[in-house]
Amino acid sequence: MKLLHTADWHIGRTLNGFSLLDEQKAAFKQIIQIAKDEDVDGIVIAGDIYDRAVPSTNAVTALDEMLQTINIENKLPIYAISGNHDGSKRLNYGRTWMELSNFHLNTLLEEAFTPIETPEAQIFMLPFFDPMDARVYYGNDDIHTIGDAMDLVLADMYKLFDANKKHILITHFAVTPSADEEIELTSETSSKVGGLATLTASQFDKFDYVMLGHIHTHNASPAENIKYSGSPVKFNVKEARMQHKNKGVYIVDITENSITSKFHEITPVTDLIVLEENWKTLLDPAFYKTQPTDKAWFAITIKEFKPSEHIHANVRAELQQIYGTVVELDYQRVKSEEDNESTRQNIGEMSHEDVVGQFYQSITGDPLSKDQKELVDNIFVELQKGE
Amino acid sequence: MKLLHTADWHIGRTLNGFSLLDEQKAAFKQIIQIAKDEDVDGIVIAGDIYDRAVPSTNAVTALDEMLQTINIENKLPIYAISGNHDGSKRLNYGRTWMELSNFHLNTLLEEAFTPIETPEAQIFMLPFFDPMDARVYYGNDDIHTIGDAMDLVLADMYKLFDANKKHILITHFAVTPSADEEIELTSETSSKVGGLATLTASQFDKFDYVMLGHIHTHNASPAENIKYSGSPVKFNVKEARMQHKNKGVYIVDITENSITSKFHEITPVTDLIVLEENWKTLLDPAFYKTQPTDKAWFAITIKEFKPSEHIHANVRAELQQIYGTVVELDYQRVKSEEDNESTRQNIGEMSHEDVVGQFYQSITGDPLSKDQKELVDNIFVELQKGE
Repeated sequence: MKLLHTADWHIGRTLNGFSLLDEQKAAFKQIIQIAKDEDVDGIVIAGDIYDRAVPSTNAVTALDEMLQTINIENKLPIYAISGNHDGSKRLNYGRTWMELSNFHLNTLLEEAFTPIETPEAQIFMLPFFDPMDARVYYGNDDIHTIGDAMDLVLADMYKLFDANKKHILITHFAVTPSADEEIELTSETSSKVGGLATLTASQFDKFDYVMLGHIHTHNASPAENIKYSGSPVKFNVKEARMQHKNKGVYIVDITENSITSKFHEITPVTDLIVLEENWKTLLDPAFYKTQPTDKAWFAITIKEFKPSEHIHANVRAELQQIYGTVVELDYQRVKSEEDNESTRQNIGEMSHEDVVGQFYQSITGDPLSKDQKELVDNIFVELQKGE
Repeated sequence: MKLLHTADWHIGRTLNGFSLLDEQKAAFKQIIQIAKDEDVDGIVIAGDIYDRAVPSTNAVTALDEMLQTINIENKLPIYAISGNHDGSKRLNYGRTWMELSNFHLNTLLEEAFTPIETPEAQIFMLPFFDPMDARVYYGNDDIHTIGDAMDLVLADMYKLFDANKKHILITHFAVTPSADEEIELTSETSSKVGGLATLTASQFDKFDYVMLGHIHTHNASPAENIKYSGSPVKFNVKEARMQHKNKGVYIVDITENSITSKFHEITPVTDLIVLEENWKTLLDPAFYKTQPTDKAWFAITIKEFKPSEHIHANVRAELQQIYGTVVELDYQRVKSEEDNESTRQNIGEMSHEDVVGQFYQSITGDPLSKDQKELVDNIFVELQKGE
């Protein structure tokens, strides 16, 4: 059988207030196309389906449509688990009806011990859980780390193994190649993943293949047979910076004799592009005309930024006129002589009004106007009365 | 065919902070038992399934279980529409799968024009909508009232009528017996329903039977063949006061020749009882021993209440010791001479501290303690500094 492995859809996510829903829908279209082209027998979604426990109405509607497209329109089985971002009880709504159409969803630890049986494989679906869940499930207060818990869970799964079949695990955790290794990963919870909160690849060695969610890049996959699919779209500037054209899904081909997997890229419709350039370059047509400004979002860091040169300019507006959507704007400042003069002052010796004025100027490039200054002064007078 | 008609479940509702979920579950058990005893062919839920657009996780789980019990466990078709309290998009989640099991759900005006066809009847399911929805649907800006809109909607339904079948409508609106009548109703939006926001029974006269939701008592049914089922439980003190043992469901028996309906009572497990008595009676065992204090909630109004007689008492605590759960406590005060003395003072002439002190005493029966008085005084000193 052939399965398409995806994860970390985070439907409903925003990036600095910009909705990623259109991009998520565009990525989904490509996922469906890959599923059709590869003639898969099912789609695995390895957790973090929604971005949060109480998703927005738009997110609920969008996910409903995607799941319908897979399961009703294309009659493909779904093998889904909840991740740490999903509200498992809420995600459960309606699943009894979905199960009748081969839409399998597990959201609780105790559900992980009933594998889906296919002619060639046993598919174990283990949703995200924490050590406390395992303590309750096993009635064992000595479970402290997720590693402790996983050893018990896996041991219980091994007991169910049918020796004539391949053994597949779908789960949602940080798994490192080896115990003493810490890898730089983009998950939702931390950028460095390791120590007590991680599992190691060797723990899973009785499984023939493990399909993971949680880490957003397939490059973080800890072994040949233990893969992260990564998220289908770039969710933040860090992901855009780390990775180039590496969002996608795995097609996993499972036979009685072998399991092979192949990564299939997803092309962003609106890419997230990180630029770190000085002002002159950013405004130079020779530079910006090489950028896909009509079909990308930009996160721009202005290098060697001199606020004094932009006193009367609206920097963001100027950049947006050229680049379109600027989702993030940052400055690497070069201190002018006057700046140095003032920042050399001990901030404690400055008046409140001057601190606000300098902060405003360093961010906007503009000094406070006369009216603004008066407003700030009045606020501090009022505050001091209050004291 | 036999249908059970219920409505206004308002799953997730609270009463002064007390969850009604247990009572709603108890009522649901009785609904299922009636459905089994009467061997019905389906269950109609005429809107306001949830209490709010974004229901709590517990409400979502509870509803999911109820719907499973009806549709999966007992294999009964469901005919449900959204009411004004439901978030129609959110309620939609999963319905494509549910439809495959004869769980029919309409949440949009445009879905109302595809009746469910049974051998003996056409069942039209018209969810709650407002005049604006109709304006958009018909592209007609002259629709101002729900009455205007409903005439257009019904006319479109009549075009679909199969003359060989009975015509049933399920909808969620305030419907009065005649145009110039205003009836006292308990709906969620207003207690007096009439005028522009209401429909009249005669508008529906081409339908053989109409199953309504929105008004919480079956006593408000505007005609023999246009019935409110009412809500299955009492939701507030007003409903408890107005009605005695009148929560329930209708069993509607539809044949080619006739339609008959019969009301079946639901017995509260924890009843909501309204008491309006004076203090002496409330504390008299001869009185309270006749009350079902171990299986009811109480809304108590103390008549002829004299705060001066309760200076050192915790009135609520005393009543709770006798009556158990007191969900609402109110006072009909008798002014003592001292009270009259002080309330005769112009409130503007009293000190802030005295206003707080008198308010506290009139509510709790206790004067402020020395510590409380000091705290109040200090707060006003701080506030005055701030001014």
